[in-house]
Amino acid sequence: MQARRKVYVEGSRPDVRVPFAEVELTGDNPPLRLYDTSGPGSDPEVGLPALRGPWIAQRGDVVPARGAGTPLVGVDGKRPTQLAYARAGVVTPEMEFVAIREGMAPEFVRDEIAAGRAVLPLNVNHPECEPAIIGRAFLVKVNANIGTSAVTSSVAEEVEKLTWATRWGADTVMDLSTGRRIHETREAIVRNSPVPIGTVPIYQALEKVGGDPVKLSWEVFRETVVEQAEQGVDYMTVHAGVLLPYVPLAVDRVTGIVSRGGSIMAAWCLAHHEENFLYTNFAELCSLLARYDVTFSLGDGLRPGSIADANDEAQFAELRTLGELTKVAWEHDVQVMIEGPGHVPMHKIKENVDLQQEWCHEAPFYTLGPLTTDIAPAYDHITSAIGAAMIGMFGTAMLCYVTPKEHLGLPDRDDVKAGVIAYKIAAHAADLAKGHPGAQAWDDALSRARFEFRWSDQFNLSLDPETARSYHDATLPAEPAKTAHFCSMCGPKFCSMRISQELKEYAARGMKDKSEEFLSSGGRVYLPLA
Amino acid sequence: MQARRKVYVEGSRPDVRVPFAEVELTGDNPPLRLYDTSGPGSDPEVGLPALRGPWIAQRGDVVPARGAGTPLVGVDGKRPTQLAYARAGVVTPEMEFVAIREGMAPEFVRDEIAAGRAVLPLNVNHPECEPAIIGRAFLVKVNANIGTSAVTSSVAEEVEKLTWATRWGADTVMDLSTGRRIHETREAIVRNSPVPIGTVPIYQALEKVGGDPVKLSWEVFRETVVEQAEQGVDYMTVHAGVLLPYVPLAVDRVTGIVSRGGSIMAAWCLAHHEENFLYTNFAELCSLLARYDVTFSLGDGLRPGSIADANDEAQFAELRTLGELTKVAWEHDVQVMIEGPGHVPMHKIKENVDLQQEWCHEAPFYTLGPLTTDIAPAYDHITSAIGAAMIGMFGTAMLCYVTPKEHLGLPDRDDVKAGVIAYKIAAHAADLAKGHPGAQAWDDALSRARFEFRWSDQFNLSLDPETARSYHDATLPAEPAKTAHFCSMCGPKFCSMRISQELKEYAARGMKDKSEEFLSSGGRVYLPLA
Repeated sequence: MQARRKVYVEGSRPDVRVPFAEVELTGDNPPLRLYDTSGPGSDPEVGLPALRGPWIAQRGDVVPARGAGTPLVGVDGKRPTQLAYARAGVVTPEMEFVAIREGMAPEFVRDEIAAGRAVLPLNVNHPECEPAIIGRAFLVKVNANIGTSAVTSSVAEEVEKLTWATRWGADTVMDLSTGRRIHETREAIVRNSPVPIGTVPIYQALEKVGGDPVKLSWEVFRETVVEQAEQGVDYMTVHAGVLLPYVPLAVDRVTGIVSRGGSIMAAWCLAHHEENFLYTNFAELCSLLARYDVTFSLGDGLRPGSIADANDEAQFAELRTLGELTKVAWEHDVQVMIEGPGHVPMHKIKENVDLQQEWCHEAPFYTLGPLTTDIAPAYDHITSAIGAAMIGMFGTAMLCYVTPKEHLGLPDRDDVKAGVIAYKIAAHAADLAKGHPGAQAWDDALSRARFEFRWSDQFNLSLDPETARSYHDATLPAEPAKTAHFCSMCGPKFCSMRISQELKEYAARGMKDKSEEFLSSGGRVYLPLA
Repeated sequence: MQARRKVYVEGSRPDVRVPFAEVELTGDNPPLRLYDTSGPGSDPEVGLPALRGPWIAQRGDVVPARGAGTPLVGVDGKRPTQLAYARAGVVTPEMEFVAIREGMAPEFVRDEIAAGRAVLPLNVNHPECEPAIIGRAFLVKVNANIGTSAVTSSVAEEVEKLTWATRWGADTVMDLSTGRRIHETREAIVRNSPVPIGTVPIYQALEKVGGDPVKLSWEVFRETVVEQAEQGVDYMTVHAGVLLPYVPLAVDRVTGIVSRGGSIMAAWCLAHHEENFLYTNFAELCSLLARYDVTFSLGDGLRPGSIADANDEAQFAELRTLGELTKVAWEHDVQVMIEGPGHVPMHKIKENVDLQQEWCHEAPFYTLGPLTTDIAPAYDHITSAIGAAMIGMFGTAMLCYVTPKEHLGLPDRDDVKAGVIAYKIAAHAADLAKGHPGAQAWDDALSRARFEFRWSDQFNLSLDPETARSYHDATLPAEPAKTAHFCSMCGPKFCSMRISQELKEYAARGMKDKSEEFLSSGGRVYLPLA
């Protein structure tokens, strides 16, 4: 990516410095600035600088939980959340940061957050995070899941996956670690992450009770949430909508309950024949998250796991409950996202967004795919990129990636890259379809480079410059080919773009009846490269 | 693919034998039959058996062009086309063959062809071809482009790509060879192809005049069409809609004219300042194609080559003309498909199908992608699979694949596989969205296997069994894992599918208040695999 360099745009105060990846172009073509999630780069041993440190301190609404150097927590009676400030009419440095990033007015950002239509997941204990906004009025975001499991991978590997994922454009990363070393893995990830980090606390809570969901309790869960909030987790998936009466609705499905959190809570509800403790204690959970500005990602524990189960009563019953819980969270000034499916055939995708927006009062929608068919394990980054692009076009704010290993194993480094790139494509295609201001400038710059045979510019502007360059060089490796007015697809004689450039010049001289000029210039077109 | 075997379903006569790929499943699960394009397999030196030989001969409407052993041509005064027979109310063996393949009534197939809503591209000189129908009422088809170019690849390579493409499910293959050896490459491809073969005759015509489009003429083109029709080409792309007055409309585009055929004809029109000779001689061309039952693929020479140029006046002006030409072809009993874009943002895709269906009198639409963004060279199989799935859902009958090498180079073997699989995914997702009868049976069979931990069945049912199996084995290689009730994503303790199977059993025994039974069975759930 030689031709890309990080540049910063300064805001109203010197410490609001917003990063962009600037792509230098050849000739007198102006450089293009791209949204950049890669962060300043860090030494895993040290972690990232505390960009937000001063902003958090200056608000004076948090104190160390247990004396100097301990994690921050909201001062009693205060709610240090971006939602609380937005509702109070305050534009925080975080809001200004994303306004510059998205090319929007700071007041617009504030108003979208105040209305609950957008979230700014930023735990007061994650000062290293570069603010990113998630809402339908903004660029569609992409989440990448990483994390150790009981049977594979190490802490160092996961930190490397984090850095790798943000390098390719992941806007947030979820640490879904299970098995041993959950706490240390998460600590390493948060300290090194320039993007918001999400988790599913029930996974760690389950570890604490020896892996038996029947032994779970509100107390163990609450303790786990505090532990993770103090580490700086920015948003947490909570399956508070999996209610006892909904479980039977999933029994006759082709694939039952495929959400881990959903099945764990369903097992607990049935074993105790009591209502989901995440639901019965939801108000207390809200006041807990409010103290750290942890954003809710209300989990879809009953999401469909196959085409056959899409848009069924189990799924929609839970979605209605998530809408009810959204109101409760907002009463506590806690930010909320709603999670969505899953596996959905194309003709049933729009209904998911429409109902979620209606029932959940326009809270941002955050979906996994959806996969548009079940027949292609090993290619589910593609089966789901189709659904992700469409659901993004219909108004989904963030897309959780799916890698080629989905349903088969844990993603390695290559799978993470494949998943992030497929989803950056889906998100950008959705930005174009929604007419996000400025989205098309990227496409236009690349297409102009292509039409003018500026090969290096075309490579440097692409989502994955190295791969684009290597594919071109596979058939035309020589340097001259980088400036050649043809490529290996048509060869020197047939290049349609070359021909139509000649037409353009011809036309520029007026569409004359006599064609001598074109004949002579046209003659030049077909000379093979010397 | 050990568990897949080719089976044949016999029709009303013993020589109508329709191939399917039957997937054996474990336990008492019934086998699943899949549409199969791989053909009987051939020795490249010998070619495939002449499946349709007797059917063609028995109609008595063709004779050798120049005495025994020479190519067949329609008897004077007869039109040996499937459209002519359909209009006459005849169900040909070819129509019965596709009816069995698609699970439709033969009379329905005949009526769709008679109405021009579907085509059966089958040259009387390609008896080796297994009939496949292209129309919005049928399964969405996928075309794979192969072919030599001036700067790369050999005849043997192209035949191998053909076999490789049909193995992965390509329904038709276009030979886009340029440079030397066009005739012999095409001969080898047609003789070994179990699927319809398409070409773009103007490419070879251009070779014949030394590569200078200005030297092209109707005579050279006609001679080329006869040469290719006698070899057995089933459908030909003809850019008869690129009219002189439309060329200026493309001049101010970001990417001008990106269709090779389109730019060649535009160059000819401007150089001579005459109307496109393919348009002025279209009626004669129709009577020529009718003699061999070659299907028209009316080319979109002015298709957009970038997001910026989508749905513009140049594109739509040509589309209107293609609708006019469709009527002319039908008057000659010649079958017609209409080619479409290209590069189109998601929100402008539906308009393409709606206008094409209206202006072209419901003739089948055959689109390239479309790519939904320009920013991802090296991943255009994905940028375009998104658009392909959507345009298929809206009624496009066949999708021309795009490989990862698009815009960068010629596809190799791996690119062909990647392109075909991405497009089989798009086509199947569209079949689901259109509610094609039987399409979902494949998804359901695979999802049931997944839910019941029938790993081998899940692999064998997938689009690419080897890759799915290898991804699974990358983290859990041991044979026992093939029957394990968990996978490496969650590990033994957390498997949501295992939990919800227990819930199912529990529910089957009635949702009792007392939960002892579940507790004991639930206890079993969390025992790690011995």
